[in-house]
Amino acid sequence: MTARDPPALSGEDRLIAQYFRPLARHPGAMELRDDAAFYTPPDGCDLVLTKDAIVAGVHFFADDPADAVGRKALRVNLSDLAAKGAVPQGFLLALALPSDIGDAWLEGFARALGADADQYGCPLFGGDTVSTPGPLTVSITAFGTLPRGTMVHRSGAGVGDRVFVTGTVGDGALGLRLRRDPAKAAQWSLDAAARDHLVERYRTPQPRTALAEAVRRHASAAMDVSDGLAGDLGKLCRESGVTAEIEVARVPLSAPAGAALAADPALIEAMLTGGDDYEIVCTVRPERIDAFRAEAAAAGVPIADIGGVVAGEGPPRFADRSGHVLAFARGAFSHF
Amino acid sequence: MTARDPPALSGEDRLIAQYFRPLARHPGAMELRDDAAFYTPPDGCDLVLTKDAIVAGVHFFADDPADAVGRKALRVNLSDLAAKGAVPQGFLLALALPSDIGDAWLEGFARALGADADQYGCPLFGGDTVSTPGPLTVSITAFGTLPRGTMVHRSGAGVGDRVFVTGTVGDGALGLRLRRDPAKAAQWSLDAAARDHLVERYRTPQPRTALAEAVRRHASAAMDVSDGLAGDLGKLCRESGVTAEIEVARVPLSAPAGAALAADPALIEAMLTGGDDYEIVCTVRPERIDAFRAEAAAAGVPIADIGGVVAGEGPPRFADRSGHVLAFARGAFSHF
Repeated sequence: MTARDPPALSGEDRLIAQYFRPLARHPGAMELRDDAAFYTPPDGCDLVLTKDAIVAGVHFFADDPADAVGRKALRVNLSDLAAKGAVPQGFLLALALPSDIGDAWLEGFARALGADADQYGCPLFGGDTVSTPGPLTVSITAFGTLPRGTMVHRSGAGVGDRVFVTGTVGDGALGLRLRRDPAKAAQWSLDAAARDHLVERYRTPQPRTALAEAVRRHASAAMDVSDGLAGDLGKLCRESGVTAEIEVARVPLSAPAGAALAADPALIEAMLTGGDDYEIVCTVRPERIDAFRAEAAAAGVPIADIGGVVAGEGPPRFADRSGHVLAFARGAFSHF
Repeated sequence: MTARDPPALSGEDRLIAQYFRPLARHPGAMELRDDAAFYTPPDGCDLVLTKDAIVAGVHFFADDPADAVGRKALRVNLSDLAAKGAVPQGFLLALALPSDIGDAWLEGFARALGADADQYGCPLFGGDTVSTPGPLTVSITAFGTLPRGTMVHRSGAGVGDRVFVTGTVGDGALGLRLRRDPAKAAQWSLDAAARDHLVERYRTPQPRTALAEAVRRHASAAMDVSDGLAGDLGKLCRESGVTAEIEVARVPLSAPAGAALAADPALIEAMLTGGDDYEIVCTVRPERIDAFRAEAAAAGVPIADIGGVVAGEGPPRFADRSGHVLAFARGAFSHF
């Protein structure tokens, strides 16, 4: 974007006009006809800024549908905003395109991205479209707002707080494994609908935007679960100078994930450390729990109390029904 | 960044701690220990947002020094902010790293980026570090501020305005050619110092941040010159519904560029259409010219009056000393 159009319509200009201008409905985006965009923040607010990049072959499969790539690129950022308690306001997009990407792909990508921009109230403000000899790479910066000084940090958890997680955990990790090895569906006794549910959970995050306000009002600490519940809760605890005791039996599972786990109990490690959940894990002080539960219910977001914050350091302890603490071979996803 | 550290220090965590945390000095960056950053905009301001990505082998040479890559990645964005009249406030960085990038490269990249963050008052607020099987890709989103409603657009040029450009034009285009084909230095009768000047002008943009306030106060329209003066001024004129008449003899040239042009007069096309100048082209109403000149001089930024805005449409006309209008084979750089 940044509308670097020569006087004669170039390929870059055509891409922007045809696929991305329709997404740039905010007046500050200048219809992508300027070097930059402007945004007028409401007085008394803070901006919350986040930036996540996804690379073909690393964060998604090169043959994933274009619409799924568009959704994932924006939603991983919306998930961060929600976990901080912020309302999305807009995003900027850098798209590095290999030469074999054609109009059909771009059309699907932009249409899905535009639908999400509408759904989440997060329009396109600008960006850059460049060519690359490498894999398709999508880098999005999203920004949101909240009342000044109210961003929810990772560092606020206190001893005695309860630990909550939204939705269900482990679906994304199982979906990734199914995507890599379709034979696992039979090993896990999953029917087609169950398999599709898990693959779709991997492919298309559902950011918990609806819970942002309740998180902001009631959570003492929060983060999004993108690299595995165990590792991400570990980061939250470390920044807060505490640790946590989690009852694995209370970790909410989807029906397909529960079925897979019944077929192969060893999957619990992948489900708790595998990433791609895009749920929110947060801590709530006891006196705020009733209000948090009520507001989550009103927002239509399921939440589960999975354990408590305790004094100490080191990784959170995940205990099974017999009180045995699980040992994980790896903490969380890391690129390096 | 986005500090996705597992409890045990991962490679990604180490990269962030070692190379990027020192750049994240703003309190809102949370030392890169959170999912997102916060920024408190001054009341009554607008944010200006821009995003440019650079790819090894496309925007810079894969064997360019790491410090030059770091500087270019940030400065191409600072150039956009300056052209809009905005004061830089911060940036977010997405870095896609191939596996052959080692610590020495990262150290040089981050050190240069940090020096620029200090020099331009534009600290790191966050971002993402991912692995890629492709070329090194750096995507930066920079943001700045200005008083509400004062962003300088491309669309404000009026008939009778004068056209100004900062610094010198064409150095970057010549530097790129010298970088590709060192033998050109001899063809153009350039000594080593002249050659190095031009290559460095290609490699390391000098964003005109010091002129942002004067542009904001006095320019009717402005943009940064990144894809060639002819094409970029063409875009500005098109958005303004006017055209321009430029006297080529008034376009400011560095001494090395002037020497190259004397050796090969056909280079004028490359110099006016070749890109990588990272100067500002702007239009100024006659009654504002004295004040604009005075403030530019006070800011230490050379500016040159190169022509005037006239009624009509189509590309700006670049006339030589005899009044002959130059014909350019290509308008401006485009990726597609």
